[in-house]
Amino acid sequence: MPVERDGKGRPFFGRWEAGFQALILLNLIAFALETLPGLDGRSLRLLNGFEVFSTAVFAVEYVLRVSWSRPRLGYAFSLFGLVDLLAILPSILALGIDLRSLRILRLLRLIRILKLARYGTVIRRFERAFEIARDELAVFGAVALIFLYLAAVGIYHFEHEAQPEVFSSVFHSLWWATTTFTTVGYGDAYPVTPGGRLFTFVVLVLGLGIVAVPTGLIATALGKAREEEREAVAQKSPPSRKRRPKP
Amino acid sequence: MPVERDGKGRPFFGRWEAGFQALILLNLIAFALETLPGLDGRSLRLLNGFEVFSTAVFAVEYVLRVSWSRPRLGYAFSLFGLVDLLAILPSILALGIDLRSLRILRLLRLIRILKLARYGTVIRRFERAFEIARDELAVFGAVALIFLYLAAVGIYHFEHEAQPEVFSSVFHSLWWATTTFTTVGYGDAYPVTPGGRLFTFVVLVLGLGIVAVPTGLIATALGKAREEEREAVAQKSPPSRKRRPKP
Amino acid sequence: MPVERDGKGRPFFGRWEAGFQALILLNLIAFALETLPGLDGRSLRLLNGFEVFSTAVFAVEYVLRVSWSRPRLGYAFSLFGLVDLLAILPSILALGIDLRSLRILRLLRLIRILKLARYGTVIRRFERAFEIARDELAVFGAVALIFLYLAAVGIYHFEHEAQPEVFSSVFHSLWWATTTFTTVGYGDAYPVTPGGRLFTFVVLVLGLGIVAVPTGLIATALGKAREEEREAVAQKSPPSRKRRPKP
Amino acid sequence: MPVERDGKGRPFFGRWEAGFQALILLNLIAFALETLPGLDGRSLRLLNGFEVFSTAVFAVEYVLRVSWSRPRLGYAFSLFGLVDLLAILPSILALGIDLRSLRILRLLRLIRILKLARYGTVIRRFERAFEIARDELAVFGAVALIFLYLAAVGIYHFEHEAQPEVFSSVFHSLWWATTTFTTVGYGDAYPVTPGGRLFTFVVLVLGLGIVAVPTGLIATALGKAREEEREAVAQKSPPSRKRRPKP
Repeated sequence: MPVERDGKGRPFFGRWEAGFQALILLNLIAFALETLPGLDGRSLRLLNGFEVFSTAVFAVEYVLRVSWSRPRLGYAFSLFGLVDLLAILPSILALGIDLRSLRILRLLRLIRILKLARYGTVIRRFERAFEIARDELAVFGAVALIFLYLAAVGIYHFEHEAQPEVFSSVFHSLWWATTTFTTVGYGDAYPVTPGGRLFTFVVLVLGLGIVAVPTGLIATALGKAREEEREAVAQKSPPSRKRRPKP
Repeated sequence: MPVERDGKGRPFFGRWEAGFQALILLNLIAFALETLPGLDGRSLRLLNGFEVFSTAVFAVEYVLRVSWSRPRLGYAFSLFGLVDLLAILPSILALGIDLRSLRILRLLRLIRILKLARYGTVIRRFERAFEIARDELAVFGAVALIFLYLAAVGIYHFEHEAQPEVFSSVFHSLWWATTTFTTVGYGDAYPVTPGGRLFTFVVLVLGLGIVAVPTGLIATALGKAREEEREAVAQKSPPSRKRRPKP
Repeated sequence: MPVERDGKGRPFFGRWEAGFQALILLNLIAFALETLPGLDGRSLRLLNGFEVFSTAVFAVEYVLRVSWSRPRLGYAFSLFGLVDLLAILPSILALGIDLRSLRILRLLRLIRILKLARYGTVIRRFERAFEIARDELAVFGAVALIFLYLAAVGIYHFEHEAQPEVFSSVFHSLWWATTTFTTVGYGDAYPVTPGGRLFTFVVLVLGLGIVAVPTGLIATALGKAREEEREAVAQKSPPSRKRRPKP
Repeated sequence: MPVERDGKGRPFFGRWEAGFQALILLNLIAFALETLPGLDGRSLRLLNGFEVFSTAVFAVEYVLRVSWSRPRLGYAFSLFGLVDLLAILPSILALGIDLRSLRILRLLRLIRILKLARYGTVIRRFERAFEIARDELAVFGAVALIFLYLAAVGIYHFEHEAQPEVFSSVFHSLWWATTTFTTVGYGDAYPVTPGGRLFTFVVLVLGLGIVAVPTGLIATALGKAREEEREAVAQKSPPSRKRRPKP
């Protein structure tokens, strides 16, 4: 059988792959549509039918991938094999049962989103960049968390008496700290006492610097990852003809 | 006729060009003024008169550009020729009719904004930078959209029961996700359950990193675009005379 | 008279200069204190007395600087001479009159803030960075303004009917556009129609990129300004002894 | 006694150190739990017991560190010795007294957070980056503060009459300026007059640039700090063997 295979001996379905991607995206939209309030019976039957159809397609895809891969079990026990299996299992289990009553199974259908990752190759640079900046991001994250904690403790002591409902404990104050440092500022929790406002001013000035750090870290890491790629390409071609280093 | 022409044989009106730009800007302001509630008849007549005047000027400009360009039809069938035509057509069609009743035609008048682009030459570096970062921005955009989708699904499951009005479906939750990840935070939709708040905390921490990526991408791309320009300039002049002005 | 002078032949008061700076800062705080509601007579007299005292000190400083500079009129007609004169004139004019009634004169006292700039020498690098990025910032600013305008026009057409109070004209919609693109999001104006929200989503995604641009521009420009400084320092000292400390 | 010691002759407890870290983190969580409203007696006793246990552990740790360090008093009079002492003193003083009544002593227990810093070695690069950008950050901070002050004065003059409750003095307006420039925008204070909104637009456009500066400064400084590290490593090993892997 003339099956196209990728580097790892697993079947590659050519232009069909784009179709699988589109079907996953349609599944995500269908999932969102199902949550719309006041759907009539016809729409629900339509969505249900589409779900059965998608499950059938993904099941056939899975069976073909398993049976056409060389060695046969290489795909079945790979990460993507597991993801593909998990993407159909919940729907097969739920077949015949009213989908509306099986919330958790419906959520599991979202695992299909992971199938998209197969097609992303440019995503590797982002992964490499993340790997480069990992240590710094970890330390920065720890510092940011401690900063968040101290801000919550501080605002609790300034605002607890004035607004016992909003800042009723350090945990409640952490919600304020989260929305403030990310500069979301919903407006459901904010200081009203002069002390609390001065405290907010001080921590926001410091916090702005903290939020500025990851931007710099990620930007630099992405730059490095790109350089590494270029160097790797340069080393593959013969070194004698390419921008000789200074002697 | 001593008509000044640019590199493509199209007429260039010297200092008049700045006048055309100013007229476009005045048109944009007039467009906004027309939407003011409670305008009296005199103001409306004034704005209408200005609209007629502008259309006349742009029509004359168009005719001159068409008839003076070499080859004659080069301009008429160029992108800017089409834009210039589109910028006057709606107003000519609406002449005599009460403008207020032709909403869509009024919006079309905004096409004139595109005429401004002719005068922007520095804008090419931005275009080049965008071209360089295009692939990464596309992948980043896809990841951000999937992240947004998952955040909306998550908050829907945490908050739907507590606030069925605000988080009534995944689509409604997407509105929350949009205002939260861009850190706008209007305050019309925010989680109130402990689970929803913890979930918001987690996704905001991850989201902050995601929002930081395009900044880095664009900054690096702009730097590269600038370098390319400098190298292009250096290659045009012989290396030994690098800093000499063009003879 | 043994008067210390700077490079331009103007008097330099040594450690007194720090005192003048402190007095300016105290003036700024006094200015803010005067706006506090419910001040009693004693506090007002105290603030008034401090104002008279500061004016006297700045007047003496001005007279000394004028009379001790070489050539005598060099300082009087310099930028800082004018700033120093403007910083005392309003208060001298208002002497004897109740300050509360002369709002505009009180605001003019803030001119003293410009006197601080004399002492800032590190600020020149920021100026240089701004000069480097000026063209790009100008083009970017123009693009951002047009983007803001189009966003306001768009949201006006989506939301005007649903919220005629909030989005009553394109000018009112510009207020929404301003608070949204800067991600401030006070929550006094936000879309409620599905169309308006989808439109907001699209423009926010584009707007995020636009807001990311100046960060990159400024960061790169500051880096360049720093490099230029280092090169300028390197060229002053003979190249063979580059790293030696000043003998 | 076979005590492990670090470079400064102070005892190092090997894998126990991680345990101390975990205990500090548990203390922070316990501190937050104590603020929860409506805790029953049993929970309070449990938290109290944990507090007594932690204090005992930290006290033993302190005594061991003091007695095992060489020279003996080197640790006791070091910064970390003082921090470790301060971390147990408040709890020892409060022993037997109802903790709830000694608010300030409870806050002092947070000093233990400083004990975490001992274990952070990667944090030095952040410190170095901060040192590099210190001058620029200071100048930038001063400019930002003056900008904030002028924004508060301006909005006060535009909005004081329309909203005397919210913008009742320049100090109250500073709260608006803080939440606006950091783009938090809680929504408890915002301009309503056309003049105030135009003023907000202008200062936000300028302010966006100001907020973009520290991001650039920190990103560049972190890059430099990393370079310095690499150069320091390169100089330690002889240049001819630079890139060899460890044999």
